[in-house]
Amino acid sequence: MSTSGLNMSRRIRRTPYTDRVEQHGVRGFSVVNHMLLPKAFQKTVEEDYWHLREHVQIWDVSCQRQVQITGPEAARLVQWMTPRNISKARVGQCMYVPLVDERGGMVNDPVLLKLAEDRFWLSIADSDVLLWAKGLALGARLDVKVIEPDVSVLAIQGPKAEDLLASIFGQAVRNIRFYNFDFVDFKGTRQLIQRGGYSKQGGFEIYLNDSSLGSALWDLIWEAGQAYDISPGCPNLIERVEGGLLSYGNEFTLDNNPLECGMGKFCTLDGTVDFLGLKALQGIAAQGHQREIRGVLFDGGPGPVCGKPWPVIADNVHVGQITSAMWSPRIKRNVGLSMIERSHWASGQAVIVQCPDGVARPGEVVALPFP
Amino acid sequence: MSTSGLNMSRRIRRTPYTDRVEQHGVRGFSVVNHMLLPKAFQKTVEEDYWHLREHVQIWDVSCQRQVQITGPEAARLVQWMTPRNISKARVGQCMYVPLVDERGGMVNDPVLLKLAEDRFWLSIADSDVLLWAKGLALGARLDVKVIEPDVSVLAIQGPKAEDLLASIFGQAVRNIRFYNFDFVDFKGTRQLIQRGGYSKQGGFEIYLNDSSLGSALWDLIWEAGQAYDISPGCPNLIERVEGGLLSYGNEFTLDNNPLECGMGKFCTLDGTVDFLGLKALQGIAAQGHQREIRGVLFDGGPGPVCGKPWPVIADNVHVGQITSAMWSPRIKRNVGLSMIERSHWASGQAVIVQCPDGVARPGEVVALPFP
Repeated sequence: MSTSGLNMSRRIRRTPYTDRVEQHGVRGFSVVNHMLLPKAFQKTVEEDYWHLREHVQIWDVSCQRQVQITGPEAARLVQWMTPRNISKARVGQCMYVPLVDERGGMVNDPVLLKLAEDRFWLSIADSDVLLWAKGLALGARLDVKVIEPDVSVLAIQGPKAEDLLASIFGQAVRNIRFYNFDFVDFKGTRQLIQRGGYSKQGGFEIYLNDSSLGSALWDLIWEAGQAYDISPGCPNLIERVEGGLLSYGNEFTLDNNPLECGMGKFCTLDGTVDFLGLKALQGIAAQGHQREIRGVLFDGGPGPVCGKPWPVIADNVHVGQITSAMWSPRIKRNVGLSMIERSHWASGQAVIVQCPDGVARPGEVVALPFP
Repeated sequence: MSTSGLNMSRRIRRTPYTDRVEQHGVRGFSVVNHMLLPKAFQKTVEEDYWHLREHVQIWDVSCQRQVQITGPEAARLVQWMTPRNISKARVGQCMYVPLVDERGGMVNDPVLLKLAEDRFWLSIADSDVLLWAKGLALGARLDVKVIEPDVSVLAIQGPKAEDLLASIFGQAVRNIRFYNFDFVDFKGTRQLIQRGGYSKQGGFEIYLNDSSLGSALWDLIWEAGQAYDISPGCPNLIERVEGGLLSYGNEFTLDNNPLECGMGKFCTLDGTVDFLGLKALQGIAAQGHQREIRGVLFDGGPGPVCGKPWPVIADNVHVGQITSAMWSPRIKRNVGLSMIERSHWASGQAVIVQCPDGVARPGEVVALPFP
């Protein structure tokens, strides 16, 4: 991994699980939402990849902060922020919702949890949606309350996650469908558990609503997990890229619209849903968006780490930039994600990836997720 | 320094100066506004402290992102966000402006640069003021444009900064008063230069408005700086704490109001200035705020690094927490910053600082800045 020292301070918030993560010998962090996200433990990324596909892992993803919106106009505010029709969500259901500004630019891409008709959580990527939602609500004088509740997500990911959690919390967790949530009892408290997470290997996320219980929850799962070969982990770069899971700030930013991000299917642009960027997105859709995120499969063995974007060239012109990449030990080629210009976004398009080690690696454009 | 690995990715943005910073052997970073902030080079924090007080340093503080607010209602939006009366600012002047929400909670504490009557920059600490300002403006339908311009601040700090910059940009820079700005020519471009910065040793900040010129600006200053014993640097923890310079996210958060932060002198609460948190702050002021940031001078040699808050105890009760601290080689004691409860905030109050190495270090409350 490409790492440099990270200086710790209160500003880069610890989580209820950081003590445990440190006890497990965490080797590196990233910073998301002003909070620590573990990025490496003792195993290599490749060892973790195989482990995640076969067993079960416990991830501290507390940095997925919740923005809680409650009140008579809560649904109105949430709908104003996203092009996705949220009226179709039931209580107990989750929904992936691109958030856009007035130009259609991506503000974030959270998972929406509908807790009640007037109560929502947005489980966010790396931008201050709390300030965005508060600003909109205060400006428009909406009758809502917007806060960051004391909720710290612990993800249990991998094919053995269901068996492990059923052994702890009972068989009812098996009945939770993908992108739905229910509640479990933990030490006399009621905690939200959702089937989902930032991998394609199956699993759950526990939205612990009491920081003081962090170590106890970790320990309970860790101990029961011994029978399932549990390992401390974190979102795995190989698995994430292969699965086509995007990362706000990496694959897309405020400068990109959801059509460019391949999120057209989540955008209701016929005017039946009113949201901030409606006119802007209608205009972009009418013209046709000019670039879109694709996979790039490219040659060469394990390459340098993609700490800054790598140019993607075709026909001697710049057609994109790789923003996340890793060598896949399963596919035996490098897998990368890149916004690619319309002129070259067709699957099979030959490209050259210019890596910072000076090597130009040939490859081709592929649909997501990777095969 | 207490560091752990930081994983690099596009999401944690590089700056126009990162290439140069790496060439100088940067040993550690922090992340501010989704951007790299160098935190350590070859020298120790203590060596850097003495160097900063005697010579001149070049700091990559691009993470102080600018939020540009322009348009007919720009001044109205800025005033709405802050309790400080901004009508008193002249074009060419800077103003330290606490930003508060509707409860009076601190959203950020930027420096405001008044570029024109209808054009402002907010040079921000670590929160997405871009989203906050945009949200307020869109919600209230204000006639403004809010963007993050391509501006990357390079700070030149230390007693020799003026001589160095006069040698490069001409004698006119000597005429810039503290917290005022002017413009200098650089390679045919016009760049803003302000007298100020995040130290008490004097200096300037250059608001480079063209990323492509980053290395050229660095090189120009670096080469001319050889005659002044220039060194690559960064905000120095000892100097910052001694000087009582606060850090958003460390000493205070959205949960604190500006009165608690010692910013009462920047709050116009008589109703002549209308801003978001007016009623809330009037209520707090009427009751008297219950805690305030103070210095704490405490015993023991160089202690552990303050990566998480340290409890401050007096009369066997918890009266605060140290959020930034370092051993001062000049004062020969540890200097720390802590929000202290009203009951114990008087200068001279004896306290105990409970450090994570298990040592309880005796000390006392002092006024800021440290003597």
